[in-house]
Amino acid sequence: MSLLVVGSVAFDTISTPSGQVSDILGGAATYFALAASYFADVRVVAVVGDDFKAEHEAVLTRRGIDTSGIERAAGRTFRWGGQYVDNLNEAKTDFTELNVFEKFQPRIPAEFLDTPFLFLANIHPALQAAVRLEMNGVRLTGGDTMNFWINGTPKELAETLKLVNVLLINDTETKMLAGDKNLPRAARKVLTMGPQALVVKHGEYGATIFFREGAFGIGSHPFRAPALPIDEVKDPTGAGDSFAGGFMGYIASQGEVNREVLKRALFYGGVMGSFAVERFGTERLQTLSRAEIDARFQVFRELTHLG
Amino acid sequence: MSLLVVGSVAFDTISTPSGQVSDILGGAATYFALAASYFADVRVVAVVGDDFKAEHEAVLTRRGIDTSGIERAAGRTFRWGGQYVDNLNEAKTDFTELNVFEKFQPRIPAEFLDTPFLFLANIHPALQAAVRLEMNGVRLTGGDTMNFWINGTPKELAETLKLVNVLLINDTETKMLAGDKNLPRAARKVLTMGPQALVVKHGEYGATIFFREGAFGIGSHPFRAPALPIDEVKDPTGAGDSFAGGFMGYIASQGEVNREVLKRALFYGGVMGSFAVERFGTERLQTLSRAEIDARFQVFRELTHLG
Repeated sequence: MSLLVVGSVAFDTISTPSGQVSDILGGAATYFALAASYFADVRVVAVVGDDFKAEHEAVLTRRGIDTSGIERAAGRTFRWGGQYVDNLNEAKTDFTELNVFEKFQPRIPAEFLDTPFLFLANIHPALQAAVRLEMNGVRLTGGDTMNFWINGTPKELAETLKLVNVLLINDTETKMLAGDKNLPRAARKVLTMGPQALVVKHGEYGATIFFREGAFGIGSHPFRAPALPIDEVKDPTGAGDSFAGGFMGYIASQGEVNREVLKRALFYGGVMGSFAVERFGTERLQTLSRAEIDARFQVFRELTHLG
Repeated sequence: MSLLVVGSVAFDTISTPSGQVSDILGGAATYFALAASYFADVRVVAVVGDDFKAEHEAVLTRRGIDTSGIERAAGRTFRWGGQYVDNLNEAKTDFTELNVFEKFQPRIPAEFLDTPFLFLANIHPALQAAVRLEMNGVRLTGGDTMNFWINGTPKELAETLKLVNVLLINDTETKMLAGDKNLPRAARKVLTMGPQALVVKHGEYGATIFFREGAFGIGSHPFRAPALPIDEVKDPTGAGDSFAGGFMGYIASQGEVNREVLKRALFYGGVMGSFAVERFGTERLQTLSRAEIDARFQVFRELTHLG
């Protein structure tokens, strides 16, 4: 089934211990869409500038992604620069140029309004809420947010959280949002704010999904999926968005949402995140095959399952 | 089969957000022995002072642990004081009084020399090596160490590592020992130093076991076990030693060492660590039943296994 993502398309300048790249295609919506494209029909709503060329759009369309919701605005595309020095888990931002993204008002094409699966990538929570409210017939909404909105726009975020079925954030964001340093307790508090399920991403340690009691009719036991121990993380940029793309894409491919689907989705999220970091930018996500993805899924299974 | 642990017995003074206790029975050998006692016949070699009373010894003997290798020396038992303030993963040490432990020279009773399973808890690596060399008929040796020895006595530690089959340390120690910040790469380097397997403990994220190629005839794919998301960690002291006790105890109970045994051992390690932190000191480890342990093993399985 189809899956709509609303978020950023960007050009990134990245420095890691493995090398450096300038102005490569990135942004949350890009990583998400590429990762999800191996599972579902993906539609993107975003804004780009004059510098977004046919070659950039082709990265998406080659994967069958519908780019008709990408708005062209006068000016430059969102740009971000960052480096991973000692710690591959956290980028040090060198610069952020919002450019055309500063005035981004997502416009959902009429033919996208009944898309059954929706992902609200990390943008202003008021925009996330507006998108969700405009859509009709959405069966499952996933969402992301970050410290900037948790601290800066708590009221708007609180309204948005009521509209999100599955929130995907990391450990620090979960604890900050709940005001509690204990993870499972913080997770339970977040689940009183709206989402029926919360995926907490642990970086190199994988992810845990927590369920609100009775959510999806499946009880409240959490589930943990691993991350792959990777010898060389070339570029961690986009790992979380690729995780979200694998997670939401797999759910959209199954049509029904139950505990087993969500568990497998968590595994596929880890799988797509593990591919993303093997090369700079979106390179690895552009040329995968479903067979490679399923082979790695088996590696994740062997990594965690008793005989 | 029987399992010998050589290490510290201590009296701990601990402060955590959940409360405070003074001079309670602790020490690596104590936590290890109690955790392992649910799986195997456990023997302890350690040193205590005049203040180690019958009531303390009874904590061990009630669990069927052989305390005949615990030496009584004139003076006070090893004492440690620490607090967990913001971070339950790391203690801030208030004081360390080595007392009788300062001159500890492990003496292995003759009837212990052929114990098939041995665990060298965190003591000076030269003492660990001496114990291992004195033993005959050991089938598997597990060992622990810490930053203090990695930095302070690298040559002695290098010799000891050649005698250890399975090393159990945490992420930071692994990276420090290998001089490499990437975990799987660091793990592979450690596996060139002697151990056939390396268990890296990730605290609240569980643990990963890495194998040297061909170790135990089982290939080199790593395996990950989770930790339980716990709402209230009352006292993290001894979690790592309890993990080691569950891990080694389960292996000793199986008699043979193969991939499946080591995988399950990793799960049982997590199970025992999860019990240890539910109460202060060794309280929870004193009164478990094998049924409770196996029920939690099932929770760990459900937490990680696809249908």
